Amino acid sequence: MDIRGYVESNAPEFFAALKEWLTIPSISADPGRHPDVRRSAEWLVAHLQATGFPVAEVWETGEGLPAVYGEWPAADPGAPVVLVYGHHDVQPVEPLEEWILTPFEPIERDGRLLARGASDDKGQVLFHCLGIRACLAASGQSAPPVTIKLLVEGEEESGSPYFADLLRRERERLACDVIVISDTTMWAADVPSMCTSMRGLADTEVTLTGPSRDLHSGSFGGGVPNPLHAMASLLAGLHDVHGRITIPGFYDKVVALSDEERDLLARLPFDEKQWLEEAGGSGATYGEQGFSTLERIWARPTAEINGMWGGHTGPGTKTIIPKQAHAKVTFRLVADQDPKEVAEAFQAYVHANTPAGLQSEVTLGSGVRPCRSPIDSPAVLAGRRAMERAFGKQVLFTKEGGSGPEADLADILGAPLVFIAVGLDSDQIHAPNESIDMSLLLRGAKASAYLWEELAASASR
Amino acid sequence: MDIRGYVESNAPEFFAALKEWLTIPSISADPGRHPDVRRSAEWLVAHLQATGFPVAEVWETGEGLPAVYGEWPAADPGAPVVLVYGHHDVQPVEPLEEWILTPFEPIERDGRLLARGASDDKGQVLFHCLGIRACLAASGQSAPPVTIKLLVEGEEESGSPYFADLLRRERERLACDVIVISDTTMWAADVPSMCTSMRGLADTEVTLTGPSRDLHSGSFGGGVPNPLHAMASLLAGLHDVHGRITIPGFYDKVVALSDEERDLLARLPFDEKQWLEEAGGSGATYGEQGFSTLERIWARPTAEINGMWGGHTGPGTKTIIPKQAHAKVTFRLVADQDPKEVAEAFQAYVHANTPAGLQSEVTLGSGVRPCRSPIDSPAVLAGRRAMERAFGKQVLFTKEGGSGPEADLADILGAPLVFIAVGLDSDQIHAPNESIDMSLLLRGAKASAYLWEELAASASR
Repeated sequence: MDIRGYVESNAPEFFAALKEWLTIPSISADPGRHPDVRRSAEWLVAHLQATGFPVAEVWETGEGLPAVYGEWPAADPGAPVVLVYGHHDVQPVEPLEEWILTPFEPIERDGRLLARGASDDKGQVLFHCLGIRACLAASGQSAPPVTIKLLVEGEEESGSPYFADLLRRERERLACDVIVISDTTMWAADVPSMCTSMRGLADTEVTLTGPSRDLHSGSFGGGVPNPLHAMASLLAGLHDVHGRITIPGFYDKVVALSDEERDLLARLPFDEKQWLEEAGGSGATYGEQGFSTLERIWARPTAEINGMWGGHTGPGTKTIIPKQAHAKVTFRLVADQDPKEVAEAFQAYVHANTPAGLQSEVTLGSGVRPCRSPIDSPAVLAGRRAMERAFGKQVLFTKEGGSGPEADLADILGAPLVFIAVGLDSDQIHAPNESIDMSLLLRGAKASAYLWEELAASASR
Repeated sequence: MDIRGYVESNAPEFFAALKEWLTIPSISADPGRHPDVRRSAEWLVAHLQATGFPVAEVWETGEGLPAVYGEWPAADPGAPVVLVYGHHDVQPVEPLEEWILTPFEPIERDGRLLARGASDDKGQVLFHCLGIRACLAASGQSAPPVTIKLLVEGEEESGSPYFADLLRRERERLACDVIVISDTTMWAADVPSMCTSMRGLADTEVTLTGPSRDLHSGSFGGGVPNPLHAMASLLAGLHDVHGRITIPGFYDKVVALSDEERDLLARLPFDEKQWLEEAGGSGATYGEQGFSTLERIWARPTAEINGMWGGHTGPGTKTIIPKQAHAKVTFRLVADQDPKEVAEAFQAYVHANTPAGLQSEVTLGSGVRPCRSPIDSPAVLAGRRAMERAFGKQVLFTKEGGSGPEADLADILGAPLVFIAVGLDSDQIHAPNESIDMSLLLRGAKASAYLWEELAASASR
């Protein structure tokens, strides 16, 4: 039986298993649901065993919630090792009154499966089990053509606080040649695509201090520096008239978009009006000159003031020169920018541009590294072929403007990332009535099956 | 008996009366003290009657606290009419633990009289009564050489909310040729001076609105305008590199300092280091290029951000593009700037500089008009001669960076202002342990006595 046929004929059992898993309310952010997160991990271990994984274990993570690890070695010990990443915890369900169903009682409607976690991320983890079975059925082998390792986290929706520690602790068992991420989205159901990069983050907080108390602006206004003016000037000066960031060296490590990447991004059917609607009804686009909106939000670094405060913020007028001004400033980064270098360059920029008479202090957060999968790398090419076989059409490339623990995986395990996922922006993940297109889950299972073949073939070339 | 002799020999009675008045805790900001504000008004009416004023009345002010009106006509009905302004309410006394005395039990120490209100403003109101008696004693007449009107407000420390209404209602009885303000300070005990202008105020609040909700900066950062960035740019753009305000037309109505004024200001023994200490330990001066610090804070208009807020202002990082940004912006104005015109010009500036995709709203406060007494006007020259006779040395000119109801007096009554006062910055008005130099109060009484002579002489020239 070929892959397509196996997936189709085993679809009912696949969805029955997924629905069973989705009944477990594994909300990592809710301490009252932590026993359910553990139950969810145990369910997955049992399912991996039933799938045929020789190794299937619950892994504890420091003070955190359990992950699941599975391993299915290839017959050939020289075959590539592929690590699949996903997570089995889910988002909270509030506001409950906006759900048309009970979040953990899955229902099918119009070809969609509705439940919290259906798309993010249980459905996308589970299609790999069906994919591996399909691959074996089609090949007639008892072991996959590559060694498959599966690491399914239990705290992704809570910021993965112990995940990097876990990766470092288990680096040897997790050693791999390729990391497959199944926790993102495609452009559209009829526009299959793969994510090829995620932006990182440098987070900072700035405080400018002037006088030791708020001053009366009648007595002192015009004679001493005002920390709020200085903050406004500092932050206004972060961008030049072309929307480029002025911090010296800021762009030095930015990997430029290739012509091919720009061409592929431009092929995505992007509706700017609809996007502006989704952007809270923003009235216009805005950003770095010379780049499209998708390039700006996916492939270019940015500086954002997330918050700013100082002085009198209550009702009425208070004619003061405030003693302090504060701002929270974050930078979205792209490969190969380093969060620490960018934060320190910003710190130097602030100090260099603080007027005489004021003190500046910049505190630096821990940051998130950007990640990037070159579209011409063997692993991405193999993934693309698998996706194209599953969808029967050309696969385009997207990027993501934010990121989770993906860069940690790539950095700590030292392997390239390939994004194989079939979620859509319209799945309403993190919102009421989360759902997933059931036919796309089956496409995902097929892409998974082809992926093992393609990665094995790619390695043997 | 000459003026000097009369004042000296009647000093004990003068201080006894003042101390009696100072025992009345006329705190206008404290509703529990409002009966005391009325008692204070009644005390002053009785004192004016005892001084010899033919007219002495309590004046009610709308919903507010009572003022006191006194009138002593000149014998010659063609003599100039002089209105003296002061106030009989006082500041609150908190923090009480920092007082070395009980605030309303006056004591003398090292030639100073300590009590709440001793300098601001009961002492400076009362020296006029002694001055008028001295003038009569010296001239041997039973009426002063000018018609003296006295208006002593009961709500100055609460923002004079009903004062302008009172002036309009009583405009006819208050009609005058000169207004004498006795509620300011001199440069120093050994540097007698007169205030010649007060800055006004235009007060505004700006709101920039972008998306209908806070946006995730990973998904949208770099693609839509950020209201906080736009606010920073707007406010940074308010000043050019020379520290001048960029709003078109902003300086059009500013009366330039004359060379004589600049020269007189430069003669004041200004200690910049000490001034910076008083400015909350500000580290450096800052302001419009081409002007001294005193010119900047007294004689030049300014723009100040009094408060600014938007987005995430709590602990930690929240990677949002905020939906709104807010700022409170006030302008200190100098003659002949108009608060409404300036506020509207700022409103136009904000609208013109709001990037596409954001909406701006600017609300305008009621503002305060600046006031100015030309140093070569007959009234100021007469006041200066009176002060110079009282102090026996040259009198310099100062200005004040803020203002109370003085511009309303000048505008509504249509008469020039002359500032005759003997308070010092070191009197700790509005703070614990307010006091006044008793010898300066007697100088004030002498200056008051000479003032009636000088104003009468000035009119007959």
